[in-house]
Amino acid sequence: MIIKDSITGDLDLVNRYINRYIKHDISAIAHIGRHLIDSGGKRIRPYLVITTSRMFDVPVDAYVKVAAAIEMYHSASLLHDDVVDNAKQRRGSPSANNIWGNKRSVLVGDFLLAASSSIIAGMKNDDLLGTFIRVLSLMAEGELIQLGLSRNTGLSQKDYYTIIKKKTAYLFSLSCESGAIMGRAPDTVRRTMRQFGLLLGIAFQLIDDNIDYVSSARVSGKGRGVDLKEGKITLPMITALSGADRKEKAVLGRALAGTTDKGSFADVYGIIEKYHGFEYTKRRAESFAHRAIGLLDGLPVSPEIEELRSFALSVVERKS
Amino acid sequence: MIIKDSITGDLDLVNRYINRYIKHDISAIAHIGRHLIDSGGKRIRPYLVITTSRMFDVPVDAYVKVAAAIEMYHSASLLHDDVVDNAKQRRGSPSANNIWGNKRSVLVGDFLLAASSSIIAGMKNDDLLGTFIRVLSLMAEGELIQLGLSRNTGLSQKDYYTIIKKKTAYLFSLSCESGAIMGRAPDTVRRTMRQFGLLLGIAFQLIDDNIDYVSSARVSGKGRGVDLKEGKITLPMITALSGADRKEKAVLGRALAGTTDKGSFADVYGIIEKYHGFEYTKRRAESFAHRAIGLLDGLPVSPEIEELRSFALSVVERKS
Repeated sequence: MIIKDSITGDLDLVNRYINRYIKHDISAIAHIGRHLIDSGGKRIRPYLVITTSRMFDVPVDAYVKVAAAIEMYHSASLLHDDVVDNAKQRRGSPSANNIWGNKRSVLVGDFLLAASSSIIAGMKNDDLLGTFIRVLSLMAEGELIQLGLSRNTGLSQKDYYTIIKKKTAYLFSLSCESGAIMGRAPDTVRRTMRQFGLLLGIAFQLIDDNIDYVSSARVSGKGRGVDLKEGKITLPMITALSGADRKEKAVLGRALAGTTDKGSFADVYGIIEKYHGFEYTKRRAESFAHRAIGLLDGLPVSPEIEELRSFALSVVERKS
Repeated sequence: MIIKDSITGDLDLVNRYINRYIKHDISAIAHIGRHLIDSGGKRIRPYLVITTSRMFDVPVDAYVKVAAAIEMYHSASLLHDDVVDNAKQRRGSPSANNIWGNKRSVLVGDFLLAASSSIIAGMKNDDLLGTFIRVLSLMAEGELIQLGLSRNTGLSQKDYYTIIKKKTAYLFSLSCESGAIMGRAPDTVRRTMRQFGLLLGIAFQLIDDNIDYVSSARVSGKGRGVDLKEGKITLPMITALSGADRKEKAVLGRALAGTTDKGSFADVYGIIEKYHGFEYTKRRAESFAHRAIGLLDGLPVSPEIEELRSFALSVVERKS
């Protein structure tokens, strides 16, 4: 990912601001908080908040707080997701639930959620708060829909896009819109930034779903084929399911039912490749990224716009 | 519990308002939501919001929303607590995590938390929102401290009161203060209501901790001795530990270490009785309830004040 040097200073401020909350007397908060901060997340959401806020002359201390709150909320959602998924790894390290147990992960997640809400509420901006809280609901809904449809081979592309929008893209959207909200940009501009973030988030998740199958654990930071193991049906799989013959469908179905072993992962991988599932997913991601970039044409030229353009391109080229 | 007939109508409105959120396309939300609503919770927090709001001439539709939000948040916290505690029963029925699994309980909890925040944020009252969000943090902290000190026989009374204030009493406090906040009562009155709720909440939890040992499953709605099984050290146990001789301490320690069976529950019960642990806990609860009632003397006489007085007395007499 291309993250401009000029942003590094602001990201430091974000980390420092997060530290205020996670340097806590309660050891579970301090330990899990540190684990999350040190584990080298990509800080994509803070990056987006910072870059887009600069376009609208938002004061640094304001956007640092919002970036911190969004990252803390993102961490909270990862803690809960890892409990929901029984995840063992996250970002190349053992996941928090794996080290400290599900109980602490649930509760520290709750704490971080409350802390992030507290930061946003403290900004005294009703628009921002309303948007933030709407995203909290949408993300919980996205995870629940995904869970309800897991191992369901009838999952449609429409269902899939509903899930990834809710579980991923709306938070990207908020990250890109928050600067426009704080900077009191005109409604049309605000809508552009919101839509840019949404399309970027969809592209990001599509690539994530390819990476889950394609990248080694070392590169992706978690095991390969985790989605398959959990019965999560993503676009590469949907593509394969829609093309596969009866025998192939049976292979995919058995793997999704959770009776897979290493041999069958290779079979599934082969079937997805045969039906160009990864390629199709990548093409769709490119299409969303280009639509996102296209939206930026309507905005006045600025270094931040250039930055966002190359960032959107890098999102679909990433391997981890 | 004495809940006045005149309040029943308002409680119906609260239930109807909650229904707007839990009648949801996502079946996990609808099912778990209905389970929580139908399982006959005591609705103590809505009752307190309603009764105290009437003292300050808050419009019905405003306090109904706040009562609904607080009850929904309470439900969210129960869902997460039951996951944390591996609870099997709640209010005499199988717990949600027992029926629908931990995953759905975590996520529906997140959804309800977001929904309740959304209702409170929608009230456009910064004081109310700030207080609400502070309680979210405090409750997560309380649960984490309790978890960190579970099975720790060195737990002090001070630790214990910190835990029960955070995990229970601050939400009571918010329930009693919210009417004064919305009704723009003078600061001194607001403080009285807040403090009344806090003391009442402490009394409530003390009695709860007695009930856990004393009442049959049929009466308490969950198994007997659940706290002991989970290694939760409450005031009856602290009292026993501080009086017990070496041999008795060993019995209590073994039971708290999680190696107990039915025989040893009887032993533990006997030791707590011997050192008047239940009686002492009841006396402490009475003392907090009376302090709470005493605070009401400073307020103008009203039917609501009378109602709160008898409610506070009933809290320490309750058996379930």
